[in-house]
Amino acid sequence: MTGFTPEEFAARVARAQHRMEAKGLSALLLTTEPELRYFTGYLTRFWESPTRPWFLIVPATGKPVAVIPSIGAALMAQTWIDDIRTWSAPDLEDDGVTLLADTLTELTPDGAEIGCPDGHETHVRMPLADLRRLQSGIGARHISGDHGILRALRMVKSDAEVARIRTACQIAARAFARVPEIASAGVAIDQVFRQFQMLCLEEGADWVPYLAGGAEQGGYTDVISPAKPTPLVAGDVLMLDTGLVRDGYFCDYDRNWSVGPASAAVRDAHARLIEASDAAFDQARPGATASQLFHAMNTILTDGGVGTDAGRLGHGLGMSLTEWPSLIPGDHTELQAGMVLTLEPGVAVNGKILVHEENILITEGAPEFLSPRIGPEIPEL
Amino acid sequence: MTGFTPEEFAARVARAQHRMEAKGLSALLLTTEPELRYFTGYLTRFWESPTRPWFLIVPATGKPVAVIPSIGAALMAQTWIDDIRTWSAPDLEDDGVTLLADTLTELTPDGAEIGCPDGHETHVRMPLADLRRLQSGIGARHISGDHGILRALRMVKSDAEVARIRTACQIAARAFARVPEIASAGVAIDQVFRQFQMLCLEEGADWVPYLAGGAEQGGYTDVISPAKPTPLVAGDVLMLDTGLVRDGYFCDYDRNWSVGPASAAVRDAHARLIEASDAAFDQARPGATASQLFHAMNTILTDGGVGTDAGRLGHGLGMSLTEWPSLIPGDHTELQAGMVLTLEPGVAVNGKILVHEENILITEGAPEFLSPRIGPEIPEL
Repeated sequence: MTGFTPEEFAARVARAQHRMEAKGLSALLLTTEPELRYFTGYLTRFWESPTRPWFLIVPATGKPVAVIPSIGAALMAQTWIDDIRTWSAPDLEDDGVTLLADTLTELTPDGAEIGCPDGHETHVRMPLADLRRLQSGIGARHISGDHGILRALRMVKSDAEVARIRTACQIAARAFARVPEIASAGVAIDQVFRQFQMLCLEEGADWVPYLAGGAEQGGYTDVISPAKPTPLVAGDVLMLDTGLVRDGYFCDYDRNWSVGPASAAVRDAHARLIEASDAAFDQARPGATASQLFHAMNTILTDGGVGTDAGRLGHGLGMSLTEWPSLIPGDHTELQAGMVLTLEPGVAVNGKILVHEENILITEGAPEFLSPRIGPEIPEL
Repeated sequence: MTGFTPEEFAARVARAQHRMEAKGLSALLLTTEPELRYFTGYLTRFWESPTRPWFLIVPATGKPVAVIPSIGAALMAQTWIDDIRTWSAPDLEDDGVTLLADTLTELTPDGAEIGCPDGHETHVRMPLADLRRLQSGIGARHISGDHGILRALRMVKSDAEVARIRTACQIAARAFARVPEIASAGVAIDQVFRQFQMLCLEEGADWVPYLAGGAEQGGYTDVISPAKPTPLVAGDVLMLDTGLVRDGYFCDYDRNWSVGPASAAVRDAHARLIEASDAAFDQARPGATASQLFHAMNTILTDGGVGTDAGRLGHGLGMSLTEWPSLIPGDHTELQAGMVLTLEPGVAVNGKILVHEENILITEGAPEFLSPRIGPEIPEL
């Protein structure tokens, strides 16, 4: 049901505990969906509800301990976790804080440092007032950062994780291939968005947490707006960017189409995007850095052209739609085999933008396209 | 594009500022999707990406100020917000913290209390280390709680908000009515889940953030598990519980079906669930409390029966799948006209559970079913 073997979870915990020891941490305190799932396999869409906090403690030795609302006990009991402590949430007086404090006190010594992810791309998913209550409820223990341990572990995927991302990418590929069935001049863009999500589901997605895109003349204005009920017209460039989930893992890539024949500017822009992602792909080997991939793309994109304000040209991918590292000038993370990245170059064309995105796997040798590589020519609808 | 008039947003801000003054707050600092959207109308699925923090400041007077990643500037400029300050995120050195601190310093006096939602059902969506940096970057100002201001405002919906929730409920009603097209003995449950999401989209959902359910003999074990590839068989009770979104607002209700004829125990359990939700519906008027609605249901559910461990029997609903209040013994929130609630009784039957859910609107007089009320008989597939 959790899809990974108990051995894989045990190995993840052992890697965490090894790093915790090096950093002097007596426990990790985790509060978000991917953090809990990484060590337990606990998979549910129930996180959509912001009501209840969920906690997992990774102690210095032994298996993680779940401190969760009782509504989750039956599902958590299907994972490899044995020690599951529950309270009846929501409890307006004490929503698990005392149970969590008591459990941390039991599992860690006086003076312990308890590591809670506090860096880039993290947040603590519990009420701030409860976090403050927790701090005063654990005596001479201190909640500190996790020294990037979750980031370091989650950034490098196991073979079993990669297999899931590959499956998600293949589902999206089949859906993208069918876009000509649903999109053509005259069809409203919001209807294209609905129909595309239906294609993703039909092709095997469990759900479609993310779909963005755009469609305007010769490009689009931004890539995060919801779809409008405007009909597609000749000369529009349609872009669909999906993060669909299968077995708890995302793909995240996009495709562009020209409604009717593309202008020379659009054709050139699309070809340049492919050239840029290919250039990054060619450099994407262990030892290269995230920053290098950024520059490999940016050099091509800004050669007489103008970049976009997306802020980055790609990122990690896995249990979340976007993960570390970021393909930006300032991220010098060294690539390692097992990392899954998006390459996401964007370019401005006559006041609009075009964005292209692929998903790749870093291996010991040449990288691998998880999304099917496409050619420089923008397809026509 | 944002769907509400500038006057509605101005009224929301005025109500917030009135309460802020009473509590001595010089500003609100908001970080989560519904908080930002409530005051701006900023609607995007881009929040699925955990990478970038987003901030909105509601000052003591005047319009809110957005402090956001540059990738969101074009879309935010389409809202009624004028003062939009951006940085190129992600920035590993300073991911908006200095810009946010400078803006707060500009907008509030020395010694100001800045209210950040910190109570039940909230979290602060920014890295904990950045929150600590922010606190030291704003001088003699202090980040405190919001005294429940967001809760109080969001809990009571405007007519325009109710209209959207009603539309979402109607879309789900059409999808539920078509379940016999997709579900019958022999069809795998995970396939039913996919097909049901397709029905929701076909009937007009923008997206389907939440679908849960279950299908086992004579009931189900829990209501939050992902669907398995197990075929439906005669005697199963299938439950589908969806939170679909239209124009940024959720419905959240469920339906049950018996695969083939239902046992007497299942028929009785279903009738009891309807009796329970009807009892709460009858009491759901201004002045009654959330706790009273809980007891109205619980008395019927536990009369010779056994409750579930869901922890509550209903909740608020709106921009989030679940919102305040909670229908639990300890929540004494008084109902007000404009609140939208779910009634969600559950009952145990021979070691399994059945759960039923409706969405209702509190008015000055009798409440209104937003989901179409169903009768006591469980429908058969």
